[in-house]
Order: sequence, then C-alpha cells, then structure tokens
Amino acid sequence: MLAALAKRFEENLFDSVIPFWMDHSVDWELGGFFTCLERDGRIYDDRKYLWLNGRQLWTLSRLHNEAPTHPDRHRWLAAARRAAAFLRRHARDAEGRCYFALTRDGRPAAYQRKPYAAVFLCIGYHEYFKATGEEWALAEARDLFARIRHWIANPAAMGRPVLAGAPPLSQLADVMVQISIALELGRSDPDPIYRDVLASCLQQALDAHYFPDRGIFLENVAPSGEKLLHLPEGRLFCPGHSAEVCWFLLDVLDLLPDPSRQARVLDILEASLEQGWDSLHGGLFYFLDVAAKPTLQLEASMKLWWPHTEAYQALIYALTRAPQPRFERWLDRIVHYTFSTFPDPEFGEWFGYCDRSNQPTHTLKGNNYKGCFHVPRSLWLSLQRIRAAS
Amino acid sequence: MLAALAKRFEENLFDSVIPFWMDHSVDWELGGFFTCLERDGRIYDDRKYLWLNGRQLWTLSRLHNEAPTHPDRHRWLAAARRAAAFLRRHARDAEGRCYFALTRDGRPAAYQRKPYAAVFLCIGYHEYFKATGEEWALAEARDLFARIRHWIANPAAMGRPVLAGAPPLSQLADVMVQISIALELGRSDPDPIYRDVLASCLQQALDAHYFPDRGIFLENVAPSGEKLLHLPEGRLFCPGHSAEVCWFLLDVLDLLPDPSRQARVLDILEASLEQGWDSLHGGLFYFLDVAAKPTLQLEASMKLWWPHTEAYQALIYALTRAPQPRFERWLDRIVHYTFSTFPDPEFGEWFGYCDRSNQPTHTLKGNNYKGCFHVPRSLWLSLQRIRAAS
Repeated sequence: MLAALAKRFEENLFDSVIPFWMDHSVDWELGGFFTCLERDGRIYDDRKYLWLNGRQLWTLSRLHNEAPTHPDRHRWLAAARRAAAFLRRHARDAEGRCYFALTRDGRPAAYQRKPYAAVFLCIGYHEYFKATGEEWALAEARDLFARIRHWIANPAAMGRPVLAGAPPLSQLADVMVQISIALELGRSDPDPIYRDVLASCLQQALDAHYFPDRGIFLENVAPSGEKLLHLPEGRLFCPGHSAEVCWFLLDVLDLLPDPSRQARVLDILEASLEQGWDSLHGGLFYFLDVAAKPTLQLEASMKLWWPHTEAYQALIYALTRAPQPRFERWLDRIVHYTFSTFPDPEFGEWFGYCDRSNQPTHTLKGNNYKGCFHVPRSLWLSLQRIRAAS
Repeated sequence: MLAALAKRFEENLFDSVIPFWMDHSVDWELGGFFTCLERDGRIYDDRKYLWLNGRQLWTLSRLHNEAPTHPDRHRWLAAARRAAAFLRRHARDAEGRCYFALTRDGRPAAYQRKPYAAVFLCIGYHEYFKATGEEWALAEARDLFARIRHWIANPAAMGRPVLAGAPPLSQLADVMVQISIALELGRSDPDPIYRDVLASCLQQALDAHYFPDRGIFLENVAPSGEKLLHLPEGRLFCPGHSAEVCWFLLDVLDLLPDPSRQARVLDILEASLEQGWDSLHGGLFYFLDVAAKPTLQLEASMKLWWPHTEAYQALIYALTRAPQPRFERWLDRIVHYTFSTFPDPEFGEWFGYCDRSNQPTHTLKGNNYKGCFHVPRSLWLSLQRIRAAS
C-alpha cells in the first residue's frame, strides 16, 4: 500500500502541485511570491503575504536540496533566490519584527501581533542557507529563532498588551513551531539549545496540552498545564493540528527516544482522528469543543485541506514506526477522502475549503494562509519517510 | 400585509426574543450581560463582551422608553441599571479606550483595536440616560462620540500602526456607526454637530462607497472615494450591510430631505438584495467579491441571521416611504426565508449561523458578536415604522 501511495504522491507533487506554484506564484520581476491565486492561477491580490513567502522559500529550497536529480531544481532555487533577496530587504521592521504582508514592491502593508511570519521566514532562510551557503540567511534564521522564543514568552513585545483578566496561555501552535524550528536549525548546528528546546516542548505537549479525559491535545492551556475548561479557547480541539503535532513529536522522539511517550503519541493520533472525524459526511472538522459546547469560530464545521495533509503524514510516520492495522485503516480512509475532495486535476494544486457536506466554498488555490506549503510538505516528507522505511 | 407582519413581529419580540435574553443573559449579581449562550440559554463563556453589553443596554432601555404599557418594562430597566453601573466602572482603560471583553467580575480580558465597543456603549449609555435621567450616562455618551470620531480618523490612537504600504481606507462600517450615533444623540441635543455628521456621512456613503457599476455599496474605498478594485478588501460587498446602510440613510433623509438621493437609496437596496441573493439555496450571502474573484473570508458563503434582519427592516422602511411592488415582492421573500430559517420556537430567540445550503452550523443563541440587538432592534423599529405609517 505505501509503495503505491508514494507513487501517487510523487506524481501529484511534481506534475501538479509544484508546477502550479512555479507557473503562477513567482514574482520574477520584483522578487517574492504571490499567493492569492484563483483556481487557474490568476492573481487576485498581489501583496506578498509573509507566512507563505517564508513557507514557499522553505519548500522550494528543501526540494532543491533533497531531490538532486530533478530537472527543475535549478529553477526552484532561482525562484527561492529572488524571494530571499526580497524578504531580506523588506520583511522586518526597525525593531526586527516581521510584517504580515508587504505590497508587491516591498512596502509594509499589514502587521499581525503574532510570531508566525517570523517562524516561517526562519525555517525558509535556514533551508535556503543549506541550498546556497549564503551566511546572511543562516544568521537571519538564528536571530529570528532567538526573537521568536522571546516573543512567545513576552507577547507585549509584539504589541499585544498584557491584560489583568486575560489568563496567560500556552498555545499548542507555539509549542509546535518551536519544535519545527529547533528540528530544522538543529540539523546544521551542534548548539545544545535545540535539543533543550525539543525536550522542553515535548514535555509541554505531552504534560500540559495532553487532555487525558479525551486522549487528544487541547489548543490552549495555562502555562502550568492547568486546563481552562471554563473558556471556549480552553476547550478548543483542532483535530488536524493535533495530528500535525503528533508527527512532529515522532520526529522529536527519534532524537530523544522514549518508547512509552511514543506509544502515547500514537494513541493521541488515533484519538484525534476518531474524535475529529465527521461520521455523517466524512472528513475532519476544523474545530471542535471538547465539551460539545458551541465554538466561537464560524468556520468550525468546515473541511479544510491542511488537517487532512497533516493526518495522512502523521499516519505514515506512525505506520513506518509501528505497523498497526488501526493506522492502515485510518490511512486508507484519510487518503481516500482527501484525494477525492481536494486536488484539482484540471488546473493543478488543490482546493482548500469545503463546507461540512464537502461542497467547495472557495475555488481559490491560495490566499493569505494557503500557499505552497502544506500540500508539498506533506507529500514530500511522506514520500521520504516511505522510501527510508522500505 | 404590513399589519399581519407587525403582529408576527410583536409576538416574536415579546414572547420569544426578549424573554430569552431576560431569562438567561442578565448577571443580576455582578452586573452586565452574559452573551455566550447555548441554544437553551446555558452560559458557555461568562465573559462580558462589550459590543453586546452596549447593544443590550440600548435595546432594553429603548424598549423601556418606547413601550410604556408593557408589564415587563421595569424589569428591563432594572437589568439595564445593573449593566450600566458595571460598564461605567469597568469598560474603559486609563486612556479612555473601551475593552472588547471583561471577565465576569470586570477585569480586562481582551482589547480590540477597533472603535466598535465604544460605539455600542455610546448608544447604550445615551438611551439609558433617556430612561433614567442619569447625567453621567449622557456625559459618557458625548465623550465617547468625540473620541470615536477621533479614533476613526486616527487609527494609530487605537494602537493600530499606520504602515507605509497600507492604503488609508474609508470603511462603510465607520460611516454607518457615525450615522447611528449622530441620529441617536441628535435626538436629545440641539448641537449642530450631529446634523453636520449626518450630512457628511450621507455624502460619504452615496459618493464614496456607492459603486455605480453594480449599484451597491462597497465596504472599503479610499477616503477620496477612489475604488480599490485591485484589492480583495476593495472589492468586498456585504449585502446585509449594504441593506442596513440603506435604512439608516432613509432615516437621515427624513432629517435632510432630498428626493433624488432617496430614490438612489431605494435603488441601492433593491440592487443589494438582487445581487446578494443566493439563487440556488435562497438567503443572502454574507460576503461577495464584486468581480466574482475569491474572498479571503472563509465564512463568505454562509447565511447569517443579521443580514436578513437588516434586509426586512430596510424593506419596511422603503415600503412605508415608497409603496412599490418591487419592495413588496422582496419583503415577502426575505420574511419567508428568515422566519423559516432562524427563529427557534422551542427555546426562544433565533439561531444565527447556517451554511450556504441553510443547514445550521451552530446552535448557539449568542456569542461574542451575536446578542440582544439585531433581532429585537429590527423587530421593534419595523413595528414602530409600520404603526407610524398606518
């Protein structure tokens, strides 16, 4: 089964997904990537959204670095080079914070009081450094790594006031992005900081965010691990995010082996899918409330592409470590649903957004949060994992 | 038709909607209103959201003031009194800005860099002053009115940085809320400022936000009125908002009569409904792109309760000024759709959120944006209008 899946993933990645982005998203003239693309690739907003510029820089650099025989890899790197120069020049403000969006020519267009633009630029610069050896990109990545940890610990430094009645939160997204950066930067740097961050994030995920009553990860808990079940944000469960954290943790556990924690992560993956699956229409809900109370998110019952890419990737990570029938059944179900719902054989790439009954609500291929990242990352890392295990 | 509708509206308002909020949302102990209520009224988040606290203060005070024979009016005022004292004490920070949410006992829980909490507190305090004669409430309302105009003109004062590449926007919401406040405060104050604001907002709506190609209002234009059709926010059309602005403008035109502008507003109302209506499933879309390009809002194709309350109210305002068959047909269609989709005869009040095919996505009765406001306001103001015209 996995071999056939690898073939399918490889074809989709190199014949449909990457060509779509290379054909439509690269601003060869001014640098950077357009990401607001209609179904057929036409640009409907020419701003450069920085979450996705950092992510696409990572994707193209990574494919260049890890697919050394692909005929297009020099073109991928050329696009990455144009983007890296643009981002180096325009992405950060005088205080070193990263904008959320720039105009096509690099003027600041939007600032978001969150660390994620910096996170994706950090991993993008780092992978680009590995592709080119350009030292400035490594220095930027390391500088951002330190700042991101500071911003997560001190949200006021991002312009987000600390209010007397707002409980400090540990956000699962912040735990995950620190793992993601530490895994990436730790590959090229013997500094023990990365391993320390991984160990501490592993503990924060499995001790603080783990919710024993349901066997899944909660999005928001108190930094101490106390559950905030009186608040909607404290009851929030995102099945796709829970699955994504699982594959990150399996990678961490390869570096910091611990069989009982690995068994726990595998159980969390299964529980996330069991509880996140819509038994009526199929697919994973975007958000759920663990007490079955209302969610504040209007899009909670929608089916998005990325929870499904994270789910099959996590299942492949699980199966290649622990070949168990429960993961085979789930992989079959998730892959069938995903490939019959999201890919667009006509124009390439994937649709991203459906309502609960799987009717597309948007035909766009990219926007300010969807770009050249979750689909190619999941296809490529899954492929690599299947090949390494076979 | 209008007389039968008035009866239906009155029953729904006083037998279902107001009892729901009076039974479940009033914090008699600490003051203020809970608004995160499940279908049956249970509280799922006990924070006090200030958009909705200001709005409910307005609604209960207004009903007290305008329904002088209703047996419950003293209880409405008692609830308003508990809320007004709570809000007076806790709603604003040291710089006079209004929080977005407070803890149940009044500590700041969230701040939003927008003027709307202040807007709704302003009209709430003003109506409460009319109910009680408490001068502090009038002073608060007038102070907020001045500050809101300053914040709209200078977003940096709300903590929103002005960025080099972000075009300054005139937002239809800001035009509308200034009209709303000036209409309310102008009723108790001969100061010519209110009439000046109304005249200037009338012009900004009809000259700047009016989009002749489609005959509707655009949500965002340049302050000069230049259309920003290269940007998703510049192409954004919210049919329910467009209809809401129409009824506000019809009220303004009663004070500043201008038959040709009134004819224009009536045509805008019809165009907003024609273009906003979902010919496949019925109902008004939440957001549309006027160039039929993708929207950045995931909830664009959802059907929300409030665009429909604004639509029938605007149609009643139109019909009682210009009895034309086009408005009768639309009113029949909107009322039929609205009352077969949103009200909850079992527990009272209305559902708020459906997907495109009109399936409820949430069963909540209130959250951080839905409370005791659009439904009772539209029912009551429609009723008053029908009675005044008959």
